[in-house]
Amino acid sequence: MRIDGIATISETQSHDIAGKTVLVIDVLRATSVIATALENGARQIIPVETVAQAKNIGVKEDVMTGERQCKKIPGFMLGNSPLEFSPQAVEGRRIVMTTTNGTRGIQKAVKGFAVIAASFLNAAACADAAAEIKKDIVILCAGTQDAFALEDGLCAGLLVKELRSRIGELRVNDFARSMELAYAAAEPKLAETLLACESGGKLSALGFREDVSYCAQVNALRVVPILKDGALRQYGKVAQSQY
Amino acid sequence: MRIDGIATISETQSHDIAGKTVLVIDVLRATSVIATALENGARQIIPVETVAQAKNIGVKEDVMTGERQCKKIPGFMLGNSPLEFSPQAVEGRRIVMTTTNGTRGIQKAVKGFAVIAASFLNAAACADAAAEIKKDIVILCAGTQDAFALEDGLCAGLLVKELRSRIGELRVNDFARSMELAYAAAEPKLAETLLACESGGKLSALGFREDVSYCAQVNALRVVPILKDGALRQYGKVAQSQY
Repeated sequence: MRIDGIATISETQSHDIAGKTVLVIDVLRATSVIATALENGARQIIPVETVAQAKNIGVKEDVMTGERQCKKIPGFMLGNSPLEFSPQAVEGRRIVMTTTNGTRGIQKAVKGFAVIAASFLNAAACADAAAEIKKDIVILCAGTQDAFALEDGLCAGLLVKELRSRIGELRVNDFARSMELAYAAAEPKLAETLLACESGGKLSALGFREDVSYCAQVNALRVVPILKDGALRQYGKVAQSQY
Repeated sequence: MRIDGIATISETQSHDIAGKTVLVIDVLRATSVIATALENGARQIIPVETVAQAKNIGVKEDVMTGERQCKKIPGFMLGNSPLEFSPQAVEGRRIVMTTTNGTRGIQKAVKGFAVIAASFLNAAACADAAAEIKKDIVILCAGTQDAFALEDGLCAGLLVKELRSRIGELRVNDFARSMELAYAAAEPKLAETLLACESGGKLSALGFREDVSYCAQVNALRVVPILKDGALRQYGKVAQSQY
């Protein structure tokens, strides 16, 4: 099996994605929010690129969520802080979400055979699903405004590590291998490393330091958000025979 | 001081480079060859992008060198193996060189305040020069055909490590930081890691395994190749007041 890591959304081309399992990563914070929301009982999450699309799709019963410049969108119920996505806020609800990088990353991956939203929180569970699906794997780091983001790269490294222990013969491209090495060095001081990176520093300065620490928890959740008909749902609740 | 790492030539833009010290890396093999040739007494090296340009510039006394698809260019005296650039072959001579990625990387950096060819062989010496020049630093990984190459990334990581011990306050972008972490993990098994990466594997298969081991030697040479009027010469022999 092959694993190809891709450093930013802008480097992604359709032919990289087609027929593959795509693990999309936006650790700070979209894919960490998605895992948390499904874990806390959200029924499904509709990721869309623009605020206008979100407003078009959303109905009264939906939880409208997302950010621009890290801040809640005016008129929306929740921002992009995973700590807001409590069972009280999301249980049984449909979520419509738009964020700057993460939802763009998921849209970019839409031609994949399977599209999974991965984060530190649920990396091992995502690796289980990807190994079960048995297709070549693309790990797509969303990055920040088309630049590489350290937190996404390190999570890619964790995914490579988790996949190695599940899949016999693996070919790993140079970028994914470099992230595997970087994660090995960062692992003992992960939260500290995320707080010191570009997005982590920016979020801390905006008052979201707790979000960064929360998102740095490795394999705390077992939920696997998988895209089906435009919505992210729990893998396992979607018919697995399709993958 | 700032250090910005850039993963491939194609991501480089002029405004990233202007006014900065640019450390260009093509470990396998152009910048390792350049360091070796100057160390062994070559007078200067003219890096050019195309075979036609090399033939236009070259005169009878020059050593014509370079590769396409890792192999020597027909009619040229040397290929792109550092082991060929012995004192017997290069001492006192001018070298005209064209390679697939490394010479393109140097051309891409030409608007920098200072342009230095760096490799594992001479990383500490290059860090000394960059610290002395006192400009913000760009570390440009040449990569392979516009894709990230692990060996160049790891060398970027070594350069960040060397620069940290020389420069008081450093701001390092996420990509450079990730490579610093990756290098820390790879350091104890560097030659093995390079032999297993994409370019290392390809070169080994073509019979250049010894080149890979040679290029994995850390800080073996003190030479700093710096670009001046289109030629790479030893820093120190070029007037330092210009930098």
